[in-house]
Amino acid sequence: MMKENNEKWTVLSSEYLHREPWLTVRKDHVVLPNGSHIPSYYILEYPDWINVIAITRDKKFVLVRQYRHGLQETAYELCAGVCEKTDASPLASAQRELSEETGYGKGNWQLFMTISANPSTHTNLTYCFLATDVEKVTEQHLDATESLSVHLLTLDEIKDLLDRGEVHQALMAAPLWKFLATRPDECR
Amino acid sequence: MMKENNEKWTVLSSEYLHREPWLTVRKDHVVLPNGSHIPSYYILEYPDWINVIAITRDKKFVLVRQYRHGLQETAYELCAGVCEKTDASPLASAQRELSEETGYGKGNWQLFMTISANPSTHTNLTYCFLATDVEKVTEQHLDATESLSVHLLTLDEIKDLLDRGEVHQALMAAPLWKFLATRPDECR
Repeated sequence: MMKENNEKWTVLSSEYLHREPWLTVRKDHVVLPNGSHIPSYYILEYPDWINVIAITRDKKFVLVRQYRHGLQETAYELCAGVCEKTDASPLASAQRELSEETGYGKGNWQLFMTISANPSTHTNLTYCFLATDVEKVTEQHLDATESLSVHLLTLDEIKDLLDRGEVHQALMAAPLWKFLATRPDECR
Repeated sequence: MMKENNEKWTVLSSEYLHREPWLTVRKDHVVLPNGSHIPSYYILEYPDWINVIAITRDKKFVLVRQYRHGLQETAYELCAGVCEKTDASPLASAQRELSEETGYGKGNWQLFMTISANPSTHTNLTYCFLATDVEKVTEQHLDATESLSVHLLTLDEIKDLLDRGEVHQALMAAPLWKFLATRPDECR
């Protein structure tokens, strides 16, 4: 598994097409190491994101169910959100989002994996946390534009969702399959 | 695991901000079931994508190594690409891409999972295939703007990559972790 040198592209020019709160598009004119030009390479700039595999003391997974307008479907999801500038760290973002979306908190937290929706186009990373022994500590605090319900699922129910292919969101399927691959007996 | 009715949003108006080959951005003014308006909800329209876990007769995984400008890093990846309009099916797209990027083909193919880079913003799905007993049948045929090298890795090397968190691309981490979770002894 030899690694060659990083074949970084050279950016000749760069301009922003959009700089909205939920959409920042940059157009780069790039040159590849082989001399090829790509005059319009589009990059989507986002803040980092987080999600959480949250498991209660009695081994229930805290999921949410939410409509997603890109695929136009409602699905079970991990609690997830954006790292706000006011958050001290991705861990703080994840703890804030779990509290706001589900009312759960406390417990033991660890960074479980770090992934990207698409390294070709996205500048940001998603930090996936594993939180065990969480408990209900407050009520949901949702924005007016958030509509989601909280569901407690067993490990077998999570496995069924994955086996049936109902977890379309790759940023959530990856940590959940990693959990099954590395901790298959943890929540029995 | 009761499922509520699909909480589909109502689209009041819709306009395209960009319709380029590699970037199609739609802005929707939507109303949620709870009556909240989101005047500017941005959707990224893409054709469907594919990727392939390709394994040779002697149990080597066919990976590629490629620079990705969003994260500005070079990484091991599964062979992946876009479903072209001229492809008969996602399977045909996957077989075409594996041949073009690596020169490998033949073997036994199955759809392994179907996921999305981000159901909130992306309209497309990614079809992940598992191809076993593939063999080298031709040479690489790359576009001028493609620069990638082919690498044959063992299952243990794949596990090491995953354990070290080097597979950032969630659309690839998800099927690889699913492979480890469901077929842990297949490639021994």
